[in-house]
Amino acid sequence: MDTKLHPRSNFWLETDEGKVALSTWRVQLLESIAATGSISGAARQMNVPYRLAWQRIREMEERLDMALVIAHTGGSGGGGASLTPDAEELIRRFREFQNGLENIVESHFEASFGGAERPA
Amino acid sequence: MDTKLHPRSNFWLETDEGKVALSTWRVQLLESIAATGSISGAARQMNVPYRLAWQRIREMEERLDMALVIAHTGGSGGGGASLTPDAEELIRRFREFQNGLENIVESHFEASFGGAERPA
Repeated sequence: MDTKLHPRSNFWLETDEGKVALSTWRVQLLESIAATGSISGAARQMNVPYRLAWQRIREMEERLDMALVIAHTGGSGGGGASLTPDAEELIRRFREFQNGLENIVESHFEASFGGAERPA
Repeated sequence: MDTKLHPRSNFWLETDEGKVALSTWRVQLLESIAATGSISGAARQMNVPYRLAWQRIREMEERLDMALVIAHTGGSGGGGASLTPDAEELIRRFREFQNGLENIVESHFEASFGGAERPA
């Protein structure tokens, strides 16, 4: 091929019922809660309505059977949210799972497509 | 986690401009043309309108800079379509690329999530 091709990949985790439990987007949402200190801050950063962010967190907690986000009410900042240690460990594992694979996808692409030379 | 999780993955190839050149769906479309002997047969099998199937083929040919499908006009069956050797080679390479990766995704998942035991 004259055009250079680039391999792309996406990874996620599903429950037995085939429902998405964790994905790159969902991990970003959790990371954004840690970074902004609240669900509303994360929703703004991810550019989604607060209600959607909240629903996705509840969904993840249910599907993973694990508490992920702790809401703090009151205080001078009017409350906020933080991640549980389980959530932090989950993020770490997902990023490890994903990062290792992205390098492998690149090398498999090179092996199968030989640097994207015209195959015939 | 009490719920068993399953890793899922998706792989595709993009051009320099970030446009999809090849994906699992697009490879299935090509395979379906080979199996049914026509674009209309493939469109029925893939459950998409003929026009969409035809557009996706033209798009792939343009983005890969390669002839993929040969139309046969006339004859007792009223014509049909078949794949070029380039298309057959491309399918073989994409399937090789994808199949090797799916096994690796599974083993990376086991390594990072330890058989989906509760992480904390």
